[in-house]
Amino acid sequence: MAVYTEIPDGQLIDYLQKYDIGELHSLKGIAEGVENSNFLLSTDDGMYILTLYEKRVNKADLPFFLGLMQHLANKGIKCPEPVAMKNGEYLSELAGRPSAIISYLDGNSIRRPSADHCRQVGEVLARMHLAGSDYQLTRKNGLSVDSWRPLYDMSENVDSVMKGLHDLISRELDYLEENWPQDIEQGVIHADLFPDNVFFLKDRLSGIIDFYFACNDLLAYDIAVCMNAWCFEPDSSFNVTKTIAFLKGYSQTRSLSRDEFELLPVLCRGAALRFLLTRLYDWLNVPPGALVVPKNPAEYIEKLRFHQSVRNTQEYGVEHG
Amino acid sequence: MAVYTEIPDGQLIDYLQKYDIGELHSLKGIAEGVENSNFLLSTDDGMYILTLYEKRVNKADLPFFLGLMQHLANKGIKCPEPVAMKNGEYLSELAGRPSAIISYLDGNSIRRPSADHCRQVGEVLARMHLAGSDYQLTRKNGLSVDSWRPLYDMSENVDSVMKGLHDLISRELDYLEENWPQDIEQGVIHADLFPDNVFFLKDRLSGIIDFYFACNDLLAYDIAVCMNAWCFEPDSSFNVTKTIAFLKGYSQTRSLSRDEFELLPVLCRGAALRFLLTRLYDWLNVPPGALVVPKNPAEYIEKLRFHQSVRNTQEYGVEHG
Repeated sequence: MAVYTEIPDGQLIDYLQKYDIGELHSLKGIAEGVENSNFLLSTDDGMYILTLYEKRVNKADLPFFLGLMQHLANKGIKCPEPVAMKNGEYLSELAGRPSAIISYLDGNSIRRPSADHCRQVGEVLARMHLAGSDYQLTRKNGLSVDSWRPLYDMSENVDSVMKGLHDLISRELDYLEENWPQDIEQGVIHADLFPDNVFFLKDRLSGIIDFYFACNDLLAYDIAVCMNAWCFEPDSSFNVTKTIAFLKGYSQTRSLSRDEFELLPVLCRGAALRFLLTRLYDWLNVPPGALVVPKNPAEYIEKLRFHQSVRNTQEYGVEHG
Repeated sequence: MAVYTEIPDGQLIDYLQKYDIGELHSLKGIAEGVENSNFLLSTDDGMYILTLYEKRVNKADLPFFLGLMQHLANKGIKCPEPVAMKNGEYLSELAGRPSAIISYLDGNSIRRPSADHCRQVGEVLARMHLAGSDYQLTRKNGLSVDSWRPLYDMSENVDSVMKGLHDLISRELDYLEENWPQDIEQGVIHADLFPDNVFFLKDRLSGIIDFYFACNDLLAYDIAVCMNAWCFEPDSSFNVTKTIAFLKGYSQTRSLSRDEFELLPVLCRGAALRFLLTRLYDWLNVPPGALVVPKNPAEYIEKLRFHQSVRNTQEYGVEHG
C-alpha cells in the first residue's frame, strides 16, 4: 500500500483542466502499488487511477511504460490505458512528481489462486508477449542477471537474516552468471506479474496492471517469474497442478521452443534470486517511519532452494508441448 | 492511512449476498481512517465504503455509531449512512472483524482550510449538535477529563520528547481536573472533527465522516476540539480570522450561552491536552512494522501553551453573540 505524496489543495482542480474528463468528485489514496502513489479519482466521466511517480521510477522510462499500456490495450489486452490530455500527451506533473491518469479496471486481485486462475494467467502472459512483438520502444531490464551482483553487494549483514545465506547467494550468482541463457526469444516482458497485479471478476481474468517493471528480456524469463509467483503454496511447497495449468494456458497461445522449455529451471533460479535480492535489500534497509512493510525474503530463499534441487524441467512434473 | 485486515478470497462475494446492492465490481483498500480498515467497494449499484472495525474500536459501541449516522442523515446532515442488510441489520462480520457497509460521499478533505471553510465547519457542527438532541442511544466519552490522568500514566519517558514536558502535563492535569466545567449543555458530539473528516466539493462542505469517537459530552467541548483542529496555521500560530469565521458559522445556527463562551479557554486547553496525550502515547509506543506513522505530539504542546496564555475568551479576538 502506498500514498507517499499529498496533493496540495486546489492543485488537483487545476490539473484536471488539462483533461477532458469532467469535474472532480473525489480522490482517495489507495493501497495499490508499492513504488508509486496511487489515487482513485472520481469525476463527472467516471472512475480513473491517478498515479504520481515516486523517485524509484526513472522518469525517462515513463514513455515506454505508458506507450506499452496503450499499445497492449489497442491489441485487446485488458490493461489500464493512459488518458490523453487535451494536448495529446499522456505524461504530466502534479505535486512536483511526474503523473498520469490511467483508466480504471474492474476486478480484484486474489490471494489464493486456483489452477484455473493460473491457466488464465498463462494465457494472458502469452497474449501479452505476442501483442508486444511490434512495440517500437525498448527498455533494458535493470534487474536482470548483470545487475544482481552489484545489487547484492549493496546488502550488508546478510547472514543476520539466515545463517549461511551469504554463501548460498554467492554460489548462486556464480552459477547464474555462468549459465544464464542468451539465445532464446526476446521481447517485451511484464517482469512482475504477481497475483497483486492480476484482476479477476467472478473468477474470470479481467485485467493486468502495473507495467512499471516491463522491459525487453527473454520471454521465458517472464514465465519463470510467474512460476515463482503463482505456482507455490503459502508454505513454499511447489504445486504441480498449478504449474501444468499455467504452462498449458501459456503454450496454447504461444508455444514454447524446446530450448525455452529445457531452460526453465535456470530461469526459475534467476527469477527466485532476483526477488530474493530486492526483498533482502529492502528488508535490511527499512527507513525509519517507512509506510511500506518490506516483504520477508525467506519465502524466496525457499523457492530458490527448490529450483536448485530440480535437475531438469521434467522434474517440475511437466512435459514439453 | 490504514488497511489492517485482508479479506480472504471468496468471503467478500458471500458477504455481499447479505445485501441488496448487486454484485461485486471491485474493492480497493483506501488510505482513510486511522483506527479501522476501510475499502472502497464498487458494485452494480454504485460506490460504497466497507469498514472492518479493528481492535481499538469497542464492538459494543458500534450500534451507537451506526445508529447516529443514520439518525443524523435522516435529519439532513450530510454524512455516511449505514446500508441495511436484507435482514434489516447494519452490523455484520467479515474476515473475523465486525463490519459494516456505509454510503459513499463525494468530496475531498482539505489541508489548508480558508476562513470560509472554517465558517462552514462551524455551521455543520452546530447543525449536528441540534440534530443529535433527540438521538436515543448514549455513549460516555472515554477520552474526557477523568480519563486523561490514567492515559498519561501509561506514557513513560515523556521528557525524551521534550525536556520539561512531564511537568507541563502534570500541572495541566491538576488545573483541568480542578476547573473542568460541569454545568453547560451536554449532547451528542463528534469529538474528532478534524480537516481529515470533513469533505468539500468546489469549496462547499459536502459531508462529514468518521463518527467513531462520537459520544455524549459538553457541546462546547466539540467547539474547542475544532478550534484546535481548524484555527491554527501549520507553524502553530493562532488564526483569529478563522476563529471568528468558525464561531460565527456555529452561533448563527446554535447560539452559545454566555457560560459556554467564557469557558472556551479551559475547554480548548482540555481539547489540546486530549490530543497531546493520545499522540504522545502513540509516539512513545510505535509497534515495530507499524503501518501508521504516529503524529508528532509537538504540535499540541504548542497549542496547549497558547491556550494557557489566554486569560479570557476575548483574548482569542472574538466577542460573544
